[in-house]
Amino acid sequence: MAVGLACLPALRPVPGIRLGTTAAGLRKPGRRDLVVIECAPGTEAAAVFTRNRFRAAPVLVAQAHLARHAPRALVINTGYANAGTGEPGREDAEATCAALAQLLGCAPAEVLPFSTGVIGERLPRERLIAALPAAVAVLSESGWADAAHGIMTTDTVPKGASRTVQLGGTEITVTGIAKGAGMIQPNMATMLAFIATDAAVARPVLADCLRHASARSFNRITVDGDTSTNDACVLLATGRAGNSPVTDASDARYPALRDAITEICTALAQAIVRDGEGATKFVTVEVVDGPSEEDCLEVAYTIANSPLVKTALFASDPNWGRILAAIGRARVAALAVERVGIWINGVCVVRDGGLAPDYTEDAGRAAMQRAEITVRVSLGSGRASAQVWTCDFSHDYVSINADYRS
Amino acid sequence: MAVGLACLPALRPVPGIRLGTTAAGLRKPGRRDLVVIECAPGTEAAAVFTRNRFRAAPVLVAQAHLARHAPRALVINTGYANAGTGEPGREDAEATCAALAQLLGCAPAEVLPFSTGVIGERLPRERLIAALPAAVAVLSESGWADAAHGIMTTDTVPKGASRTVQLGGTEITVTGIAKGAGMIQPNMATMLAFIATDAAVARPVLADCLRHASARSFNRITVDGDTSTNDACVLLATGRAGNSPVTDASDARYPALRDAITEICTALAQAIVRDGEGATKFVTVEVVDGPSEEDCLEVAYTIANSPLVKTALFASDPNWGRILAAIGRARVAALAVERVGIWINGVCVVRDGGLAPDYTEDAGRAAMQRAEITVRVSLGSGRASAQVWTCDFSHDYVSINADYRS
Repeated sequence: MAVGLACLPALRPVPGIRLGTTAAGLRKPGRRDLVVIECAPGTEAAAVFTRNRFRAAPVLVAQAHLARHAPRALVINTGYANAGTGEPGREDAEATCAALAQLLGCAPAEVLPFSTGVIGERLPRERLIAALPAAVAVLSESGWADAAHGIMTTDTVPKGASRTVQLGGTEITVTGIAKGAGMIQPNMATMLAFIATDAAVARPVLADCLRHASARSFNRITVDGDTSTNDACVLLATGRAGNSPVTDASDARYPALRDAITEICTALAQAIVRDGEGATKFVTVEVVDGPSEEDCLEVAYTIANSPLVKTALFASDPNWGRILAAIGRARVAALAVERVGIWINGVCVVRDGGLAPDYTEDAGRAAMQRAEITVRVSLGSGRASAQVWTCDFSHDYVSINADYRS
Repeated sequence: MAVGLACLPALRPVPGIRLGTTAAGLRKPGRRDLVVIECAPGTEAAAVFTRNRFRAAPVLVAQAHLARHAPRALVINTGYANAGTGEPGREDAEATCAALAQLLGCAPAEVLPFSTGVIGERLPRERLIAALPAAVAVLSESGWADAAHGIMTTDTVPKGASRTVQLGGTEITVTGIAKGAGMIQPNMATMLAFIATDAAVARPVLADCLRHASARSFNRITVDGDTSTNDACVLLATGRAGNSPVTDASDARYPALRDAITEICTALAQAIVRDGEGATKFVTVEVVDGPSEEDCLEVAYTIANSPLVKTALFASDPNWGRILAAIGRARVAALAVERVGIWINGVCVVRDGGLAPDYTEDAGRAAMQRAEITVRVSLGSGRASAQVWTCDFSHDYVSINADYRS
């Protein structure tokens, strides 16, 4: 049911990055469920992780490893989140890293583990480790598309994006893949994203780029308001493009680099929402003229997460009263209700806090029929703005989440 | 699909209160949609209203009227919320009050209007006013059950509760009716509740009772996290029981009065959740051992409003990882994840932040099969507690809310 998602675009190889995918039979036989990403020596990395207080074992291990070493490899499994598994879960993650390190000839702490799937069950560590050689055997710079398949859980389509950009006369590539379809909400959600570039970039600059990009992409999406224990986004820079390293954010090449990375992250984040569990609509909620970006975001998320708004979107029903009611309960300090305006795909529905005089139900219905909907809200009390992306709430959302474990 | 709701219990008349219900043909022909409640002279009233910033016209009018006079009558319509209707909506509400006042021979400001239904459409004021004489013609002390039907919207069953209690040697009656099934959330939600007693109670004491009762009942329920523009709860005291008035909260009779009112409010609030849109389970979320009641409530509501938790409840799936993830994203200052425990209907699922060693999936599944589920969470970091009531999230929730206006 993914909304407006074409086939996976061509994903350009990133020199210095090789990917290998296999079917380890973790939860479903024959399904690609194990991915190894190998990074050439000298690769720099930055990462952001879930802000949920319950962090899965692989998140804890990846954070600890990353604090000590630049990574030489990433290992990603689906089927099991290895979350809520305590000390044994941590040992499973460490053992996975050690096994891959031995195969690749690096230190265990140079491997970062990632998991996604059901929370609370032990990782089938033997099956996983036994399948690592098969993943390593197929490592290839052209392995991106397979890897995009190999990290999926309830996703209906693989997600990837790729582009090249000139960086001071050198062409560099940025390619990324992501997974995620449910449990999506601000601040990382259940999603994994792996983005790599062959540009030479110092680690602090890479971290700057990722902060900038994720604040405008992965941290602006919501499917159901739930966050996950396992979210992670990793940005790798192999330095194989041949540019002189970007070592400072004041470098004239920095904006082009940052924007290319932001563009890839935005494409991946939007793809996650377009593939939201049961989604039939892709919805942009834009809140403008607010007192602060924080207030605008709070209003935008309250609308985007309202089950009543989401079911009205599913029904193509211009039930703007539900939008109004959501705005009215947002946790903001002040709200001038008599100045609020609402537009649905350009049709002004509410003006000055009440039904717009020239609004007609026919115009509203026509606007709501489209698969891509922009809900624009003016708070009429400032100059700040914010936007988030979400999807509607359908029967299939319930089916998918009621049946997930069976 | 109401969970564990028997037929409407016998609703004892409250001397001094007469109710009349009719079918005004407001939205659906032949449906009871208009209720008049007449209060004897000398009746005292207290009320609480929605905290949504967008308050419907009848809420604004009722608040203004109540500030000036004790009410002589209430008029309640379904089908139209008269919200988001601006100044014309206010005039419609005032005109309704004036028309009823003329029929009953009181001042317009002695009438309180209440509306529930679709937001944003003008009240069909002529049809409503034309039907008032029919409602007045059937005013009767035994009109409670008809009125419980007459205030329903998406409710599948009428809701009422009634009891008697000894107040210093005098038997008094407390009877209440309520409506509400969706857009239910902390702080009043889309619900209307009308409770009356024949006890003689001074207005400040009545207000105390209502604050106490609503904090433990209507403000502890959630169906979908949405609040409404129209919520209201009115408590009336006619003074016809013959007791000497309760004029102070230090009166020895006060606890019995307050507890009887709280009991009726709790029964009505739980009935609303049991009839939650599409509900197949009645769920109590109890958070204990927290640092403050506020933190416990925040955790309880985050669990109770999580679509992933609610769909797992619908599926009878003991997917405790979703409960854990919801706890982890609750907006509380501190959370000792390693001390968190979770019980489902008494089965310990999580201990010390991880899977309980003695937990079995069979025990979890068995516990989840029941129609009444208690999710108990211990935060292990204090002595405060809070509980909220909610329901699961089913296919029917989506159907009901996608089709509501059609």
